[in-house]
Amino acid sequence: MTKMANHILFGADYNPEQWNRDTWKQDIALMQEAGINMVSVGIFSWALLQPEAGRYDFAWLDEIMDLLTQNGISVDLATATASPPAWLINQYPDILPVDQYGSRYVHGSRQHYCPNNEHYRKASAELVHQIAERYQNHPALSMWHVNNEYGCHVSACYCNTCQKTFRIWLRNRYQTLEVLNDRWGTNFWSQRYGNWDEIGLPGHTPTFRNPGQELDYARFMSDSLYACYENEVAILREITPDIPITTNLMGLFKPVDYFRWAPGLDIVSWDSYPDPAEGTPVSAALANDLMRGLKAGQPFILMEQTPSAVNWRPINQIKPPKVMRLWSYQTLAHGGDGIMFFQWRASKAGAEKFHGAIVGHSGQKTDRVFMEVAELGQELRNLSEIVDSRVPARVAIIFDWENWWALELPSKPREMKYLNRIMPYYNILFQRNIPVDVIHPSMAVDQYDLVIAPGLYLFQEGYSTKLEEFVEKGGTLLTDYFSGIVDNNDRILLGGYPAPMQKILGLTVSEFYPLGNDQKIRLSRSHSILSRTSYNAAFWAEHVQLISAEPLAVFNDGFLHGPAVTRNHWGHGEALYLATAVDNYLLTEILDNILSQHHITAPLSVPTNVEVRIRETTDTRYYFLLNHRDDDVDIAMPATDMTNLFTGSSAKTIERLRSKDVLVFAERKGQ
Amino acid sequence: MTKMANHILFGADYNPEQWNRDTWKQDIALMQEAGINMVSVGIFSWALLQPEAGRYDFAWLDEIMDLLTQNGISVDLATATASPPAWLINQYPDILPVDQYGSRYVHGSRQHYCPNNEHYRKASAELVHQIAERYQNHPALSMWHVNNEYGCHVSACYCNTCQKTFRIWLRNRYQTLEVLNDRWGTNFWSQRYGNWDEIGLPGHTPTFRNPGQELDYARFMSDSLYACYENEVAILREITPDIPITTNLMGLFKPVDYFRWAPGLDIVSWDSYPDPAEGTPVSAALANDLMRGLKAGQPFILMEQTPSAVNWRPINQIKPPKVMRLWSYQTLAHGGDGIMFFQWRASKAGAEKFHGAIVGHSGQKTDRVFMEVAELGQELRNLSEIVDSRVPARVAIIFDWENWWALELPSKPREMKYLNRIMPYYNILFQRNIPVDVIHPSMAVDQYDLVIAPGLYLFQEGYSTKLEEFVEKGGTLLTDYFSGIVDNNDRILLGGYPAPMQKILGLTVSEFYPLGNDQKIRLSRSHSILSRTSYNAAFWAEHVQLISAEPLAVFNDGFLHGPAVTRNHWGHGEALYLATAVDNYLLTEILDNILSQHHITAPLSVPTNVEVRIRETTDTRYYFLLNHRDDDVDIAMPATDMTNLFTGSSAKTIERLRSKDVLVFAERKGQ
Amino acid sequence: MTKMANHILFGADYNPEQWNRDTWKQDIALMQEAGINMVSVGIFSWALLQPEAGRYDFAWLDEIMDLLTQNGISVDLATATASPPAWLINQYPDILPVDQYGSRYVHGSRQHYCPNNEHYRKASAELVHQIAERYQNHPALSMWHVNNEYGCHVSACYCNTCQKTFRIWLRNRYQTLEVLNDRWGTNFWSQRYGNWDEIGLPGHTPTFRNPGQELDYARFMSDSLYACYENEVAILREITPDIPITTNLMGLFKPVDYFRWAPGLDIVSWDSYPDPAEGTPVSAALANDLMRGLKAGQPFILMEQTPSAVNWRPINQIKPPKVMRLWSYQTLAHGGDGIMFFQWRASKAGAEKFHGAIVGHSGQKTDRVFMEVAELGQELRNLSEIVDSRVPARVAIIFDWENWWALELPSKPREMKYLNRIMPYYNILFQRNIPVDVIHPSMAVDQYDLVIAPGLYLFQEGYSTKLEEFVEKGGTLLTDYFSGIVDNNDRILLGGYPAPMQKILGLTVSEFYPLGNDQKIRLSRSHSILSRTSYNAAFWAEHVQLISAEPLAVFNDGFLHGPAVTRNHWGHGEALYLATAVDNYLLTEILDNILSQHHITAPLSVPTNVEVRIRETTDTRYYFLLNHRDDDVDIAMPATDMTNLFTGSSAKTIERLRSKDVLVFAERKGQ
Repeated sequence: MTKMANHILFGADYNPEQWNRDTWKQDIALMQEAGINMVSVGIFSWALLQPEAGRYDFAWLDEIMDLLTQNGISVDLATATASPPAWLINQYPDILPVDQYGSRYVHGSRQHYCPNNEHYRKASAELVHQIAERYQNHPALSMWHVNNEYGCHVSACYCNTCQKTFRIWLRNRYQTLEVLNDRWGTNFWSQRYGNWDEIGLPGHTPTFRNPGQELDYARFMSDSLYACYENEVAILREITPDIPITTNLMGLFKPVDYFRWAPGLDIVSWDSYPDPAEGTPVSAALANDLMRGLKAGQPFILMEQTPSAVNWRPINQIKPPKVMRLWSYQTLAHGGDGIMFFQWRASKAGAEKFHGAIVGHSGQKTDRVFMEVAELGQELRNLSEIVDSRVPARVAIIFDWENWWALELPSKPREMKYLNRIMPYYNILFQRNIPVDVIHPSMAVDQYDLVIAPGLYLFQEGYSTKLEEFVEKGGTLLTDYFSGIVDNNDRILLGGYPAPMQKILGLTVSEFYPLGNDQKIRLSRSHSILSRTSYNAAFWAEHVQLISAEPLAVFNDGFLHGPAVTRNHWGHGEALYLATAVDNYLLTEILDNILSQHHITAPLSVPTNVEVRIRETTDTRYYFLLNHRDDDVDIAMPATDMTNLFTGSSAKTIERLRSKDVLVFAERKGQ
Repeated sequence: MTKMANHILFGADYNPEQWNRDTWKQDIALMQEAGINMVSVGIFSWALLQPEAGRYDFAWLDEIMDLLTQNGISVDLATATASPPAWLINQYPDILPVDQYGSRYVHGSRQHYCPNNEHYRKASAELVHQIAERYQNHPALSMWHVNNEYGCHVSACYCNTCQKTFRIWLRNRYQTLEVLNDRWGTNFWSQRYGNWDEIGLPGHTPTFRNPGQELDYARFMSDSLYACYENEVAILREITPDIPITTNLMGLFKPVDYFRWAPGLDIVSWDSYPDPAEGTPVSAALANDLMRGLKAGQPFILMEQTPSAVNWRPINQIKPPKVMRLWSYQTLAHGGDGIMFFQWRASKAGAEKFHGAIVGHSGQKTDRVFMEVAELGQELRNLSEIVDSRVPARVAIIFDWENWWALELPSKPREMKYLNRIMPYYNILFQRNIPVDVIHPSMAVDQYDLVIAPGLYLFQEGYSTKLEEFVEKGGTLLTDYFSGIVDNNDRILLGGYPAPMQKILGLTVSEFYPLGNDQKIRLSRSHSILSRTSYNAAFWAEHVQLISAEPLAVFNDGFLHGPAVTRNHWGHGEALYLATAVDNYLLTEILDNILSQHHITAPLSVPTNVEVRIRETTDTRYYFLLNHRDDDVDIAMPATDMTNLFTGSSAKTIERLRSKDVLVFAERKGQ
Repeated sequence: MTKMANHILFGADYNPEQWNRDTWKQDIALMQEAGINMVSVGIFSWALLQPEAGRYDFAWLDEIMDLLTQNGISVDLATATASPPAWLINQYPDILPVDQYGSRYVHGSRQHYCPNNEHYRKASAELVHQIAERYQNHPALSMWHVNNEYGCHVSACYCNTCQKTFRIWLRNRYQTLEVLNDRWGTNFWSQRYGNWDEIGLPGHTPTFRNPGQELDYARFMSDSLYACYENEVAILREITPDIPITTNLMGLFKPVDYFRWAPGLDIVSWDSYPDPAEGTPVSAALANDLMRGLKAGQPFILMEQTPSAVNWRPINQIKPPKVMRLWSYQTLAHGGDGIMFFQWRASKAGAEKFHGAIVGHSGQKTDRVFMEVAELGQELRNLSEIVDSRVPARVAIIFDWENWWALELPSKPREMKYLNRIMPYYNILFQRNIPVDVIHPSMAVDQYDLVIAPGLYLFQEGYSTKLEEFVEKGGTLLTDYFSGIVDNNDRILLGGYPAPMQKILGLTVSEFYPLGNDQKIRLSRSHSILSRTSYNAAFWAEHVQLISAEPLAVFNDGFLHGPAVTRNHWGHGEALYLATAVDNYLLTEILDNILSQHHITAPLSVPTNVEVRIRETTDTRYYFLLNHRDDDVDIAMPATDMTNLFTGSSAKTIERLRSKDVLVFAERKGQ
């Protein structure tokens, strides 16, 4: 299951239960005008669909489903389990989750359920069963939208049920207490367990918790949320085996290991809310690449984005005119096959009434936001052929949720953020318009020329062998400081850092030197491939002792001396190591050097902050040109024959690309 | 009941229970010296007056009441219910309130009671009954001081009693669940209620709560505190129908809707604690005007101010020499008829021992603070004639606690503070010495020429008609961005913003553009009544579409274009709209323009930061001149005959007003 | 009991239970190489030593004790009670402490016990009994290490047991409720208690708690922790009356009054973790002096320091090369007789695996850190003769934990930190190389020429008389603003500030003027002993009225006038008062003036930031020269004959002292 439709999905979350039937009629008319071809319905309808235990009311939903069918709009039907109704909470108050300090949450917002609560699981299964039975053959049904943004607000629960379930989860994982005690290192601080019932949750402790326990608890909570998902999916698969299933993920969302989830999703979909105040959405680009990577390159759906502004930041700036379109194309360019919005019509009441919507509070189709969406909807009809095309990449960045969790646990040499470890590399490649796959460390790397493993602190068994084989065959590995430090229980890999990569990197690290937040240090060039005599670095330094590597740059600051950037020849390839956070000049030179060695270049030569992306099928290459700049630019197009997909005409030698504008070309292979 | 006495009340909180009888004698002598004519007694005496259930001990209070009577000092007698004693808490632990996270407060400070607790209500009623019975005929008794600073520390409680009482309150308000579900918009996020018992308090939720629930909870808590007040007042009215009743309010205090409370108070009194570190107390001036407005202009009492410094800020700066007197006159000038202090004698122990007091820890009458208070006390004897005179105003600012609560709920286009919406207008009018009434939106506006409605986001039914009539007759309405947006359940008034004011403003707003905190934007003049070609604005912008209004200034910044400041002719008047937070230059020009149209001028022409205020009776106008500056100034006095109330002599042509000094003149009308 | 050994103790926390027997062998070999002569064993071994109720397993510890004995390493044996095992918590969950909001802590880190819990007390006593019985005659046993860092994470508990125990503690202290009510001033805010059972803990109150209650609760918690210590010590003294007992204190640690504890310790030991990012460890120097002062000058042990970095700060910078040695010598120079590390070998797992250790994760003895430690260990063998020598001082700074607690309670004229009151004086004396004793206010002061009492807000009975006698005999007293304000129940000492020091200071203070955080004020010279005409001050000012004192400097800023720095002649001595936080220039001049009056000088004349310290016995003076600078310096040595203890040769006329280097000389008296 990879291709949802023969056109780009275009639609929105649609909540007709908030409106009367007159409005429904206006909705349908406006949807037609906007080119909407799919809507997500019922996400927060539990309380209406099941007004009390045992009683269901599908009348309004029947009506809406029919209305949509009649108007050619397909439905991404929600399982409606994201927010359990008040009557259920009153019946089973222990559905409410508990925070780290032992305080139970209350009803009154949303997502107020403990993922391990049996009553929640049972009641949601029942509801899903009812919905699936009722709509299994409805012509509008084209996709299942399971629950909503799992873990968004409640990604950890400290209730008694979770405690008991955690013990079972641990028993399954470790079989015996001896193993658990060993993996968690419980001889430290007198933490040894003699009985499974002694194990608690990493809650409100006097000081630093056991990191092994914290790491397993993070895994357990991610798995617990997935078990909620599976609880529903099992029913759907049985009743509607042919309907694809998704749940809307959240991109760079720490609490949930989406790599573990991906096999259970037919289609990856996700919600993207970059802050317009931050300019070019580079981290949204990374998230797109990650979402594409979850199922090894299979196109995904952008399930939610705002057409204008959100309402949950302290300050919610709008996407300026043309920017919603620009960013929508960025998603397509990175592998998306659908562009959906939250939401169709701005609510009249409730906590999201100021969230941007396609139809505003005025209800007018002359509002700028509606007009921009409608223009995009019409325009996308010309791009159906890109559906299911793929993004080619020869560079991979390794990304691992377990590493994210482990790296950001406290009591480290210094605090650090995993995303800050990745972004410097991604930023440069983004500016260079070099496509990147974002992959799990267990995935195959044969198809890449360069694999980057930033801050890969947690290093699982087997990674060494794989990376050694990759480099042996001619690949380049680029990794950096504080990588290869612990096993998957956050226990040190002994024998000198980074124990599992000493061989391939040709060095050992004997000391970490965390640097102050405002501290800069100086590096000196020690190899002619670098252009400057000195560079800056920050954040961290190390004492590196070379085994077989050669230094490219060395520390030259106070008591800091010795290799800072190294390169080790290994088989037909090379392994580079950065023992510090080098400045942008140096990182750019290092990356450029590697790219040029492997003859990796951008698809087109364009000015800074103009994005060029490729998608391709067996016979066509699609060029996406996105101008993130505030001014217009001219792009020199290649001599090959390319078709402008908006106009149908051939590309000119020089194409004018307006500020915030987009161009899409098709290049037929073999022509 | 409006006039408490034929002289200005002058006194303090007096806590003789903290001292021995020798000190009492010194107190009386020092009070005489300081011109004290009333003291508030017994505010925190519950534990002494009722040492255990059923046992009362009034001996010491009898003695004090007699002593004060003998020395001609009247008593504002407290009902002593502000801090329930430890024995009562031990007997009924559920009197203790509960915070939003479910943690119950403990005894050990003060105000540790749930306002809805029946045991607290019953015990306090019993105490009030005892006190009222005992002192009903005591000659010292001149006013009742009910409880103390309601809601100061505990203005919200999340206990089970409050939950049950909230349900009853809601049932009274909405009658049926259908209405409640509609008003709260519970079809959003599956929040629909099928049973009253399902409704909880807006406590510890995973994310944003239902705004309708939050708004009603704010109303409910304000009402709950008022019910405590009424609980006591009912007894007092029965036993002492002729004794005026007050409770000390707190000015610009968000949790309690004083407009709802005012009808239940015979006299408004309030506690004013501006931070001396902030210079001229403009917000205290606003609070004075608001307190005067609670009972439509009736004079109020300043029940507490510090003679020097407080002790509850992180840094507690003193009022420099002469400033306590200056600020006391500011209160009189804004409509106060009494000046009281917290407290008479600095405590030896407890959490307020470093709070400023008239008599310090030295006990010496030669201390600066005592001397300044005593001089003021003597001086005020010459001002008895101002009692019950009124403050005339032709400008009104609309102020609404319900709007305050709604506007500051989260999940808005951007966070904003209601007082920050009001202060820019008030500041300019304050500097211009234009008197302002601060009124509730339901109050009559006929007597005003200019009505300003800043940030009136929550817009109740009927406001439109009233404002339209007001402008129709020639009045000027000035309102601004994000006004007229929701009804009194925080539901959007649909049909284009600001739906209820589109007609009178002659425009519609189709988009909000929240701006970053440091973002400035440029406006251009589009009408000749403005003097500059461009101005700055910040914080917020809007896309305004004109219907009948004319633009005075337009946005001219990036993608921001269109009207920013507009004026609409309506009947004999005008309605102005500011679609952004304009800079002080522009706001001053707009206000000056309106004031000059209506021939509204300051009573006297004075230098910047010299305050001039008028109070008047049918035959006399009183001029208060207050020099907030650090230097002396000369004031040109009008040609009319005016009497200096301090000296009894006639005003000079030029009066010298020293730094921080005050002058008060009487101008007899018809002379 | 003062002298532990005839050599400097040198060792580390040793946790062999985290490693296998192969590693033990390597450990022993490396310990020999590093000159280790004592290790602390078993601190967190409870769960291993007692795997379940009633069952003990000493086999591994027997083995380690024997191994150490065989290799000449003595043992500081822990009582292993610092972290109760999971089975005990499961059996008695009320061992877990409760935070101020009523949330109970959970197992999973360490120190999760309520110090007043009877089950914890009983179980730990049982364990201590077992350990003491087993090892009482073991040759390795040289010292008892009771528990670990008492109060480090849990220094306050709000459980029911603590509440009950607090009532008993109060009853013992005050005998009757009348006394308690009087001491706490409960007539304030209706807080009077009629029954002991009404008294709660100062927990989650709506606003400021009763300061008397808070102060007594701080005393109570310090005493409760001490009772835990005594609970173990009673057993140890009975079984091993000749083995010295210590527990590792934490220097400037607010929650525990170490002056009250000191009599119960045979040897003071403490853990020192200055942040290398802060440069020269002046506050560690102060802490060393305080630790030495706890037992009136008796040498102490540095029980823990890191050889490189810690892991519990957000950023953990390393001690640069040579700095660990430099700071170790600083400790010796200030009166230490032992240098121990945390820990011997870096853990493989758990929350402290990145804490610096002598043996790193590489296990290599070629690592810089190991080599530096080993060099120090060898070197210290040459310094055995300094053991038990004393630090002579003629200046004392008064330090009082009860004052610390009281001064930092809220609701003060302004917030302030006790250590910030002390450091300005200590800093200047440190830079001047003037030795300082840090003493409790109840200690004798006869041996000093200058006594400094910074911020001595809480002033106990009898202090006045002692200080008056001290000055009468020729001593100089230097004290400052907001001193002598309250008694030991935080009740104002009435009659004008500072009531108990008015006589000796010859002045009275009638008003406090807290200043803003960025506010600077100007002082003018009013006495010729000062060199400049004006100085700055900040933070606080006062209105000082002179009785017999003379002003040295006066306020000259806005409304601030009058004496700022005063001197009063009293008997043969003088008492100086600083009514504000004077700038460093003025404070230096004042101190220099006093030092020169008393002919107090540094042992040697050295450049800035070179520390010179003296220790002495009856016949020898030891000079410690410590270069904290980043450059090398030349020191002119005195003409007397001095022996370099590292080389055995005589001191040169000019000694070269390298950056971060140390020199130690012995000067034989009478030579």
